[in-house]
Amino acid sequence: MATMRALMKKEAGPGAKLEKVPVPEAGPGEVLVKVKAAAICGTDAHIYSWDEWSASRIKPPLIFGHEFCGEIVELGPGVEGPPKGTLVSAEGHFTCGKCFFCRTGQGHICQDVEIIGVDTAGCFAEYVRVPVENIWEVDSSIPEEIAAIQDPVGNALHAALIDEIVGNNILITGCGPIGLAAIAICRFAGARKIMATDVNEYRLNLARKLGADQAYDVSKVDMVEEVIKETDGLGADVFIEMAGKEKAINDGFNALRKGGWASLLGLTPGDVKLDLNDGIIFKGAKVYGINGRLMFDTWYKMSSLLTSGLDLKPLVTHSFSFEEFEEAFDLVLSGDCGKVILYP
Amino acid sequence: MATMRALMKKEAGPGAKLEKVPVPEAGPGEVLVKVKAAAICGTDAHIYSWDEWSASRIKPPLIFGHEFCGEIVELGPGVEGPPKGTLVSAEGHFTCGKCFFCRTGQGHICQDVEIIGVDTAGCFAEYVRVPVENIWEVDSSIPEEIAAIQDPVGNALHAALIDEIVGNNILITGCGPIGLAAIAICRFAGARKIMATDVNEYRLNLARKLGADQAYDVSKVDMVEEVIKETDGLGADVFIEMAGKEKAINDGFNALRKGGWASLLGLTPGDVKLDLNDGIIFKGAKVYGINGRLMFDTWYKMSSLLTSGLDLKPLVTHSFSFEEFEEAFDLVLSGDCGKVILYP
Amino acid sequence: MATMRALMKKEAGPGAKLEKVPVPEAGPGEVLVKVKAAAICGTDAHIYSWDEWSASRIKPPLIFGHEFCGEIVELGPGVEGPPKGTLVSAEGHFTCGKCFFCRTGQGHICQDVEIIGVDTAGCFAEYVRVPVENIWEVDSSIPEEIAAIQDPVGNALHAALIDEIVGNNILITGCGPIGLAAIAICRFAGARKIMATDVNEYRLNLARKLGADQAYDVSKVDMVEEVIKETDGLGADVFIEMAGKEKAINDGFNALRKGGWASLLGLTPGDVKLDLNDGIIFKGAKVYGINGRLMFDTWYKMSSLLTSGLDLKPLVTHSFSFEEFEEAFDLVLSGDCGKVILYP
Amino acid sequence: MATMRALMKKEAGPGAKLEKVPVPEAGPGEVLVKVKAAAICGTDAHIYSWDEWSASRIKPPLIFGHEFCGEIVELGPGVEGPPKGTLVSAEGHFTCGKCFFCRTGQGHICQDVEIIGVDTAGCFAEYVRVPVENIWEVDSSIPEEIAAIQDPVGNALHAALIDEIVGNNILITGCGPIGLAAIAICRFAGARKIMATDVNEYRLNLARKLGADQAYDVSKVDMVEEVIKETDGLGADVFIEMAGKEKAINDGFNALRKGGWASLLGLTPGDVKLDLNDGIIFKGAKVYGINGRLMFDTWYKMSSLLTSGLDLKPLVTHSFSFEEFEEAFDLVLSGDCGKVILYP
Repeated sequence: MATMRALMKKEAGPGAKLEKVPVPEAGPGEVLVKVKAAAICGTDAHIYSWDEWSASRIKPPLIFGHEFCGEIVELGPGVEGPPKGTLVSAEGHFTCGKCFFCRTGQGHICQDVEIIGVDTAGCFAEYVRVPVENIWEVDSSIPEEIAAIQDPVGNALHAALIDEIVGNNILITGCGPIGLAAIAICRFAGARKIMATDVNEYRLNLARKLGADQAYDVSKVDMVEEVIKETDGLGADVFIEMAGKEKAINDGFNALRKGGWASLLGLTPGDVKLDLNDGIIFKGAKVYGINGRLMFDTWYKMSSLLTSGLDLKPLVTHSFSFEEFEEAFDLVLSGDCGKVILYP
Repeated sequence: MATMRALMKKEAGPGAKLEKVPVPEAGPGEVLVKVKAAAICGTDAHIYSWDEWSASRIKPPLIFGHEFCGEIVELGPGVEGPPKGTLVSAEGHFTCGKCFFCRTGQGHICQDVEIIGVDTAGCFAEYVRVPVENIWEVDSSIPEEIAAIQDPVGNALHAALIDEIVGNNILITGCGPIGLAAIAICRFAGARKIMATDVNEYRLNLARKLGADQAYDVSKVDMVEEVIKETDGLGADVFIEMAGKEKAINDGFNALRKGGWASLLGLTPGDVKLDLNDGIIFKGAKVYGINGRLMFDTWYKMSSLLTSGLDLKPLVTHSFSFEEFEEAFDLVLSGDCGKVILYP
Repeated sequence: MATMRALMKKEAGPGAKLEKVPVPEAGPGEVLVKVKAAAICGTDAHIYSWDEWSASRIKPPLIFGHEFCGEIVELGPGVEGPPKGTLVSAEGHFTCGKCFFCRTGQGHICQDVEIIGVDTAGCFAEYVRVPVENIWEVDSSIPEEIAAIQDPVGNALHAALIDEIVGNNILITGCGPIGLAAIAICRFAGARKIMATDVNEYRLNLARKLGADQAYDVSKVDMVEEVIKETDGLGADVFIEMAGKEKAINDGFNALRKGGWASLLGLTPGDVKLDLNDGIIFKGAKVYGINGRLMFDTWYKMSSLLTSGLDLKPLVTHSFSFEEFEEAFDLVLSGDCGKVILYP
Repeated sequence: MATMRALMKKEAGPGAKLEKVPVPEAGPGEVLVKVKAAAICGTDAHIYSWDEWSASRIKPPLIFGHEFCGEIVELGPGVEGPPKGTLVSAEGHFTCGKCFFCRTGQGHICQDVEIIGVDTAGCFAEYVRVPVENIWEVDSSIPEEIAAIQDPVGNALHAALIDEIVGNNILITGCGPIGLAAIAICRFAGARKIMATDVNEYRLNLARKLGADQAYDVSKVDMVEEVIKETDGLGADVFIEMAGKEKAINDGFNALRKGGWASLLGLTPGDVKLDLNDGIIFKGAKVYGINGRLMFDTWYKMSSLLTSGLDLKPLVTHSFSFEEFEEAFDLVLSGDCGKVILYP
């Protein structure tokens, strides 16, 4: 039986192991993909570190990882899918297809979703099985390392393009990879001024490279003041929250102009205290909660942008082999990076 | 010089006085309205009781009151307005007409607004001056006591009709007059099930009269459970928040279905602790902050509903003369009422 | 081998034959439904009369008919669908599931659609095969004759609820069954005045029964004048086109107010001459082309309305047995009817 | 009494005269603007040539022209406007402020509008009077010749940004100045491919300069075929009609993809024959009629784009003095130009 290398959470607790395991087979309705590049998500770092959420959700042993691209090498029984050799990525939310949400074009909030690399075997391996409905064909003009990060770029696109960007002043709190991708997307979509915040200098520099007009270190400056000044006293037209921090959320709403809109994507460690009156109600603000990516509206739009000039290369800052995974995760946990790629 | 009776906050502190004061004159761009009926708002009750907000905002002496209808008796210099004798109400937010918001059809969030009965002399008087732009002509089929409460009914309409109601299951937290009006409006607009909450039996009964299918006393039942049960496990499609209480807000978001929408109108006494992750973000919910009424979209729509069958008569439960104002305010503060009218 | 009665277009040309044919079997991914009630669509009347469109599209022999309800009697291999005995209807557009449209929640405009009773065996038979994805479970409170007409009611709902109805004055041109259903839906959704047009007195009377405030016989009155008068000179806020006639379309746009919106559903026999300048451009109007029903948003919404008070019983005016099909089709072709049901 | 030079239509019939006339005075609510640059609109060319529309609408003697920028030199009685010396342009639609449209933020379709240079004295003069509400302050970074053409650029922006552009394939029929501006705006807003059509080589070259990926000479190629090919068989996501020609409109809808959207701005000389079935209805297309510019949403957005990188300089191709007006109009009528400026 053929084997492959796979990065596994073997048991409850921190760390991971690179192991030899059997190559999976594509079942009915599935394809087998040979992974060409995978990327490390914040969620993977949580699983690696074994935080509270991971302990409650992950059932070891599990191959983790959900961001990748690769080549189709096998079609399961009955699958008339893309031919072998096609370069693909995949939507990692496997949906039930039967609930109210799935039947109304809202699969991203399916009642009964399974997530690759969380609930089922993931992509930190030489091969990964995926339902053919989740397969996304990659345009040949898109480089592999960009093809591998479409999952988080899709999150950014879903958050940023859910309402009007063109001509608007945009505030993005949090310059992790999704925030950074949002900067590039807003720039591409004709934003006026883009103001970004973080506390990490490496990421603030990346923010500038990806198109931010202002990148504020909020450990040093009062971002509400800065945004108000930068927008002639009105406040930002749009607030995209990618930090998941109570202060960022409150500051963001304080810096939002009346009648503006906000996307919330960053998850907070617990409940947050909010001034709803001044932050949202008196302002007549509109707020969108953002979960995942629209299936597959977001993927089509993303492909459209990537093939017509959206340049995300500065976002991918480091790459490692599977064997160097410890170094890779340490780097991700340090925050001194953009997107980090693992190559089999 | 002609005098009139007017209900005034004479000095900082609780209570009010009914006094004789000069009848005002309509200045340039203004009309003078002879008040036929006025209504007591929660804000008026705050001013009467002299809470923290009132102490910081109101500058006595002030005639308060902002909900009314009456008859035009004088047109100021240069005003080519509706003729004398016209039955009118008025939008109580006087806007600057020059800011970004005013110039883009968003006068309800004007940078430089003045509110009648708060910043300028109000309608608890025999006569009141109003800028002609704020005047709203009342259709002759609308009874006076309904014409007098278009300001709060407009709040309810703005909150309820900002997104889709027809065919949706609606949760309305808080059955004060605005919540009650929202119930009637949602019923009129083809809502599926309407579920309302309060802790006051009088108001829960009014809720049922105005069209609620379920009216929950949240001091006795767990409304999240009830709503989930009533909606076959999905949760309410729409959540309209009129209570201004932390628990109502959190329960409301917990009872909202994924992909649903919420209007927030109730003001909270301070910051609130919220579970943004489960309440808004994972749900992919859409949230609208609601301030005032759209000028004058809300007024046209309201007039349209009131002249084609929206029946708000059960909402007006009591009426008093100006002389009986203490009794009227005591009743409003007790909560055992719907809308309370003051007649000059 | 079991046989069943089926109404067939046996060969190119007018008419139909009631024949004995084998009962079909549910294939993989399909269910077999025992038809309880079917309804005759305008399309079926075209196929029966064998018009130009039918001659170019229909390949006899074919069992036609696409509006029905029935009971599941067999699940095909691998189908974990609703249990036998479930009362169901079905979306008659069988979609490919793979094209841009299907993957973005727009299955109603699938690139590669097949229509039941047009491209594949239809429901004018004792049994019909349907892909399980197309099955729609019917709420037990919905009567069979209403369950059978959800396809055209869905067209009406899609056309009417694509934009705001509540508080708006609505003009509906054409009181065929879909126009009539639109009247009832607009009434339910809180429309202000509903004005409908036709040239058939029977249908104008039905229009009044279903909720039209005004039903104009356009062979006798100038509907533009009437609508303008009825709307105080502004014109209708909404124009829903169900007639498919050049004059109705031009009159409708002339009667639409500036800034209003229109739904076009009626198909015209050929190109139409339009005054785009005055009808659409100067008005700043918004126009929606309406094709089919949203899968399955429209079905959920329809079920929601039907279970909370939308009363369509007056719409179903006649019923016949399969054996009486000639009488039934003659009636449909005469226009002196609402919806006509065929019972096996 | 001070005099000024003004370009006038003196009497019914072709041509114009440059005359000495009294300098107007700013009345109550008005300001007087010293014109720095004016631009020739297609409408001005119609007035100059004296076509059917002009003959029915224009009452000579009239100073025409409505696109300009200039400096405030006088404030009328009671005006607390921008100070003298401010560089301004103006919205040329003077609205009533009282109708349903004006009171609901839809002043661009006011019931009772007057248009500068059509109904009242225009800007082809050294000075022009304008209601202060119509004044638009120009950001100091915007060059005069661009400030002068904000009226037609606003038309383009209103047509292009009324729905989603980012990531979409755009077809723009007609490369007059408004079509050309739309190209630049779509490029700025993150369009995927922009395909433009015309029959004039000069303008097709300008289209390429302003950002069109493809510029088709429709006297030589079949644009429907080209667009279908360019969009992998799907058709354009968006169709912006600026030609006002029956063939362009039909071809445009034929080249539009299912579920796409269209803006119609070009006025046609008479009724047009349209295939509504295949062009709009089966497609489930959405169509917007475009009239003027949103007051003042469009102006704010335009200013936002012009100050953050939208480069329209290639659009302004020629300039003349008032004295050279015949040469200027001949050029405009030839079509071999972009925007043509007249300097006093």
